[in-house]
Amino acid sequence: MPRTCLVLVRLDPATTSGEPYRIVDPHEPQLSVLDLGVTRGDGIFESISVVSGIPHALEAHLRRFVRSARLLDLPEPDPLLWHRSVLAAINRLDPVPEAAVKMVMTRGVEGQSIPTGWVYAAPLPDFGQVRSEGVRIVTLDRGYRSDVATTSPWLLTGAKTLSYAVNRAALREAARRDADDVVFVSSDGFVLEGPTSSVLLRRGSALISPGKDMGILEGTTQGDVFEWASKQGIPTRTEMITVSELAASDAAWLLSSGRHAVPIRSVNGVPHPVDVPLTGQINSFLLHDRGQPSPQRPQ
Amino acid sequence: MPRTCLVLVRLDPATTSGEPYRIVDPHEPQLSVLDLGVTRGDGIFESISVVSGIPHALEAHLRRFVRSARLLDLPEPDPLLWHRSVLAAINRLDPVPEAAVKMVMTRGVEGQSIPTGWVYAAPLPDFGQVRSEGVRIVTLDRGYRSDVATTSPWLLTGAKTLSYAVNRAALREAARRDADDVVFVSSDGFVLEGPTSSVLLRRGSALISPGKDMGILEGTTQGDVFEWASKQGIPTRTEMITVSELAASDAAWLLSSGRHAVPIRSVNGVPHPVDVPLTGQINSFLLHDRGQPSPQRPQ
Repeated sequence: MPRTCLVLVRLDPATTSGEPYRIVDPHEPQLSVLDLGVTRGDGIFESISVVSGIPHALEAHLRRFVRSARLLDLPEPDPLLWHRSVLAAINRLDPVPEAAVKMVMTRGVEGQSIPTGWVYAAPLPDFGQVRSEGVRIVTLDRGYRSDVATTSPWLLTGAKTLSYAVNRAALREAARRDADDVVFVSSDGFVLEGPTSSVLLRRGSALISPGKDMGILEGTTQGDVFEWASKQGIPTRTEMITVSELAASDAAWLLSSGRHAVPIRSVNGVPHPVDVPLTGQINSFLLHDRGQPSPQRPQ
Repeated sequence: MPRTCLVLVRLDPATTSGEPYRIVDPHEPQLSVLDLGVTRGDGIFESISVVSGIPHALEAHLRRFVRSARLLDLPEPDPLLWHRSVLAAINRLDPVPEAAVKMVMTRGVEGQSIPTGWVYAAPLPDFGQVRSEGVRIVTLDRGYRSDVATTSPWLLTGAKTLSYAVNRAALREAARRDADDVVFVSSDGFVLEGPTSSVLLRRGSALISPGKDMGILEGTTQGDVFEWASKQGIPTRTEMITVSELAASDAAWLLSSGRHAVPIRSVNGVPHPVDVPLTGQINSFLLHDRGQPSPQRPQ
């Protein structure tokens, strides 16, 4: 079996017969330079963790994919079609402990009104070290007020779009400041999210994250961690968090599909406490107790 | 000759011999789905107006392309290589009154550290009507303060990146409000730019635009119009402009490479005066008196 797998998803509404997806060579060019995904970053995506062949939080990712499509006025994705395409890609992959599968839908070639869609599956590197040692973060201005999701929905803050140049530039700024990652802060001083992660902190016994009304992505991993914590009797809540509150927290993490829970070990150069046992428990849950074999498999 | 032309620009620093660019079929897929241009909107572009086969403001576009690359920490583009590639694309195009040529450079396929570059040339539609009748604009919050270019360079406000999803969403919001285009406003209330244009207004005899320190693109068309106006004895200046000042101006335009000077005929539903003679003069300059045959042609 191949190391990576690329599945093109057929999204032309005019074609209703034939295969709904097609396995193609990921090393061959598959995209037009006129695709609005590349000329305008005009599309959406999801990255899904695959542990021992099982996609995690797939339903939550599919729901967010549909929400992102709505925010961008893209045609509504068919969750069943994407579900099948994701499984098709995973099933053709070499068995590895951890992989990631990425779903992408763009607005398609300009003027044609047919979205372009694909699913790409590939093994993930070993994140064991970063999950135990943690990351040094800097807080960076995201430029936006904390209320823009309500006042200015065209800023697309709740959608997972392909327009990630700012997220990448922020990570380069972190490297310049001798840090590994970023926590974005609203222009009115509240903690938002990382470029590719949600923020979680512990204060006393409670786990706290910023709410999705802050113009941030609804984290699929964060959602699962909150659900797990509730079952463990750990109180959870969302609230508006200042940078001082983040710095004063008893522990903090960046949560994401690929790396899972990564402890924050310094904030703007100041060492931050790492909760080793809780980090281990969260990652053990995310790795081993979350995935359920999907009830549905493609033929 | 073909209706459109696509030139792939060779940007692999390891390859120094052979053709620096390659004419390919624009109808064939040329891009990998792993290109960071599409997966992260991580790249830069320029759109250049071509009138009667002559690219306008090519040097200014190349300078801005280099500036955008610096802001994104991309390898510095070789202006001569891009210049030649642009001319190669134009020279292979069917003769048309107006065309546009787009230069794109992405960060390339993830992990390979080789940028992807191309130049695409295609005829433009006839903009005669919009240039005389004008557009209805709405002002929309850009979310950012007017000082973010200074405080938060990682927001890339001065770079022309491929991450244009917000610009496209703003245009859809304009359509929902029964308007044709958008003027973005900073969170502290100052006029910035359109999604694909610079803002120009006339107050008395003076032409005024927002300054590039406002976190906006330095407009190539706006630069040329200011230079032309100065030669005509028309005073020009940049200043911070409020929405009320835009609404109270004696005339206003959106300036861009493709459409040139388009008069604003209403602001948030309120009719705005159109200066027909000055619009005609500006567009006559932009169309007929700007382009000089390039001293350099590819072999």
